[in-house]
Amino acid sequence: MTISKLLNDYKNKITAPRDVIAQIKARIKAHTDNPIYLYVLSDEELEPYLSRLEGVDIDSLPLYGIPFSIKDNIDLAGVPTTAACPEFAYTPERSSFAVEQLIQAGAIPVGKTNLDQFATGLVGTRSPYGACKNSISPEYISGGSSSGSAVSVALDMAAFSLGTDTAGSGRVPAAFNNLIGLKASKGVVSTGGVVPACRSLDCVTVFAAELPCIQTVFDIISRYDQEDIYSRAYTPTEEKAKRSFTFAIPQKKHLKFFGDDQAQQLFEEAVKKFESLGGKAVEVDYTPFDESANLLYSGPWVAERYIAIKDTITKTPEVVNETVRTIISGGDKIDAINYFESEYTLKKNRKIMDRIFNEYAFMLTPTTGTIYTIEEVNADPIQLNTNLGYYTNFMNLLDLCAIAVPAGFRENGLPFGVTIIADTFEEEKIMDYASNYLGV
Amino acid sequence: MTISKLLNDYKNKITAPRDVIAQIKARIKAHTDNPIYLYVLSDEELEPYLSRLEGVDIDSLPLYGIPFSIKDNIDLAGVPTTAACPEFAYTPERSSFAVEQLIQAGAIPVGKTNLDQFATGLVGTRSPYGACKNSISPEYISGGSSSGSAVSVALDMAAFSLGTDTAGSGRVPAAFNNLIGLKASKGVVSTGGVVPACRSLDCVTVFAAELPCIQTVFDIISRYDQEDIYSRAYTPTEEKAKRSFTFAIPQKKHLKFFGDDQAQQLFEEAVKKFESLGGKAVEVDYTPFDESANLLYSGPWVAERYIAIKDTITKTPEVVNETVRTIISGGDKIDAINYFESEYTLKKNRKIMDRIFNEYAFMLTPTTGTIYTIEEVNADPIQLNTNLGYYTNFMNLLDLCAIAVPAGFRENGLPFGVTIIADTFEEEKIMDYASNYLGV
Repeated sequence: MTISKLLNDYKNKITAPRDVIAQIKARIKAHTDNPIYLYVLSDEELEPYLSRLEGVDIDSLPLYGIPFSIKDNIDLAGVPTTAACPEFAYTPERSSFAVEQLIQAGAIPVGKTNLDQFATGLVGTRSPYGACKNSISPEYISGGSSSGSAVSVALDMAAFSLGTDTAGSGRVPAAFNNLIGLKASKGVVSTGGVVPACRSLDCVTVFAAELPCIQTVFDIISRYDQEDIYSRAYTPTEEKAKRSFTFAIPQKKHLKFFGDDQAQQLFEEAVKKFESLGGKAVEVDYTPFDESANLLYSGPWVAERYIAIKDTITKTPEVVNETVRTIISGGDKIDAINYFESEYTLKKNRKIMDRIFNEYAFMLTPTTGTIYTIEEVNADPIQLNTNLGYYTNFMNLLDLCAIAVPAGFRENGLPFGVTIIADTFEEEKIMDYASNYLGV
Repeated sequence: MTISKLLNDYKNKITAPRDVIAQIKARIKAHTDNPIYLYVLSDEELEPYLSRLEGVDIDSLPLYGIPFSIKDNIDLAGVPTTAACPEFAYTPERSSFAVEQLIQAGAIPVGKTNLDQFATGLVGTRSPYGACKNSISPEYISGGSSSGSAVSVALDMAAFSLGTDTAGSGRVPAAFNNLIGLKASKGVVSTGGVVPACRSLDCVTVFAAELPCIQTVFDIISRYDQEDIYSRAYTPTEEKAKRSFTFAIPQKKHLKFFGDDQAQQLFEEAVKKFESLGGKAVEVDYTPFDESANLLYSGPWVAERYIAIKDTITKTPEVVNETVRTIISGGDKIDAINYFESEYTLKKNRKIMDRIFNEYAFMLTPTTGTIYTIEEVNADPIQLNTNLGYYTNFMNLLDLCAIAVPAGFRENGLPFGVTIIADTFEEEKIMDYASNYLGV
């Protein structure tokens, strides 16, 4: 279910938005064993989104009748936002800035999707609504925290979806469900109307099965929001993919696959594919990435997670998922000295980024080193989550942009993914390299 | 003593750098009652700087033989850096990045100047070497923390000087000694080789009696420093002064002169002068400036001051100036939550700055609302210092640039100053408006 196919079918009257929505509802009903959607709009709630399209020229709206799903930490007017904590829920009067842009462009919100509670996790299991299962192999995790947003797209319950990404939540579920996930530079997509995880780092992201969908949606939501204090005017660099280029990969000794040999092989194949496209891979020291990544959960940014749910975690700690509570509950014990010392470390590493992203077209990493079953994660929820963030946790701290793309399958049918990383505002460039890599 | 006059005199053999240095040394000797310089280079130490100029084409070095003074929290190779705390002193092997640029351009370092200890203060009295007295009226404060840097220039003991500015230290002493002080946007002048006050906010600044000196020096020191984690490439906006423009001033109810009616009158005259130059003054709400300013000493940035002198304040607190100790000693008690909540406030206010500096050519404020005697400050050292920072403390927190310019004299001969404030990287524009204002 892609945007261009739907628009084409609408124009040729092969189908209509109402039919597509009906089919999606049927698919959702067929998957009640998997808590993908936390809320599906009723026919009555959908009616205004559908009826406003009647008599409108399809070409006048880039997302005419395109169904999309919304991670349930992003506001949709009139529908509860739970952040996967029912006791935290509220019903916003206004949609988030990004959702507003999409609706104005003709898109139809299907519903709100499951997530790791308060967007804290990369697994998709930390939800009182149940673990969101992988779209391909249900005993495996879907990845998180944007679990339902990814799975809903993978299972054709939406043409695209919105997720959020603080630590990797817009990339890991893409890798685990054979999708593309774009995490733009901080502030390019407004976080107005989003429940904060780490407010200074949060990004709104897009999942889709095909790159043109990502590009269309990104064009619509990459707008400056005067009301969002972290919004930044998107000033894209003009650089595009080159026919001959060098790209950075982590030094071999720093690559971690946690025993997943097939993942390692698939990463090597992805590197070779970029080399066949004119690239030359150069190993770079991964230490500054790893050192930065480690600050996300061991450093002061836990205080931001604490601020975001302060009332809930202090007054009714029992409603907070146990693992999430373990992670966040120390957030009020961190001192400002820790913050500034962490900032100095990041600024030092950011200087190294300046040099790397000046020298190389992009950096290529696995999106995750491996994947786990739900059972494995339940047995060791924090460490395995940490393993999954090895290639993702540094991204927003270092102000980089990234696109996660599919990179083949393991023998058991589970997908593997790689991430193309570049400097602030280089979204167009990484989408162009992704396009070449995917052959689209 | 200006750069152009000195270069001209050198070219016409009216004088030579050795003679100028000798005259400066004589002037310094004549002012031993005022602790302006903490260290003056001996003839032996000066010799390499002088002898390297011999046989060199004067036109090849923009600062050929120009004497300058250096605030004693900025490193000069081979000479102690005390930060006005002799027990803290160390002798650096390398000069700070900015000093290196100046020396390469032919300038001659005369010595290191007195300051409020650890650059914490706007008064010039917080030094174990004694209060640096005002250059015009010695019972008055010189302003701080770059007290000696300003007074040395005002008393012709240097053609220009380097100061630093975290809370206003590059502007307040300019106002009190009838000088110009340029505080560029954060990171434009490297703070490599500077004792941090608040490392994330500190700026290196320039004092001079005439604007062309400021411009010449700024051209030389506004260079990217790969080794300074806070250095930013200077990408000046092309905007220059216009013949017809609007400029912002604080709403009348927010203007504070602390009973100094003559200061108020001089500010009104400065506004009128800008109006006579084609400007239209528009009052803007000063609340976001004031709210931001208040965070500097009541918020988490005190933790940065603590980090900067942690060893000294924990191991030998008795060597820290009593007022400075009172301000900094709580720096380890501030939590990271305070940091992030302060950041949210600043980001909110920074959005307002976007609008103000998009709409108006610049903002004009008094540099300080009044001036005090040394005795007055000694009697109430914290509150009066706070009063002096009312128009300056917000500047680096909001990432603005500013130039402090003379704006007439009170009846008692004490100078008054105003500050032209603009957005990040608008240094060229404010210097251009300053030029029109000063009629140079």
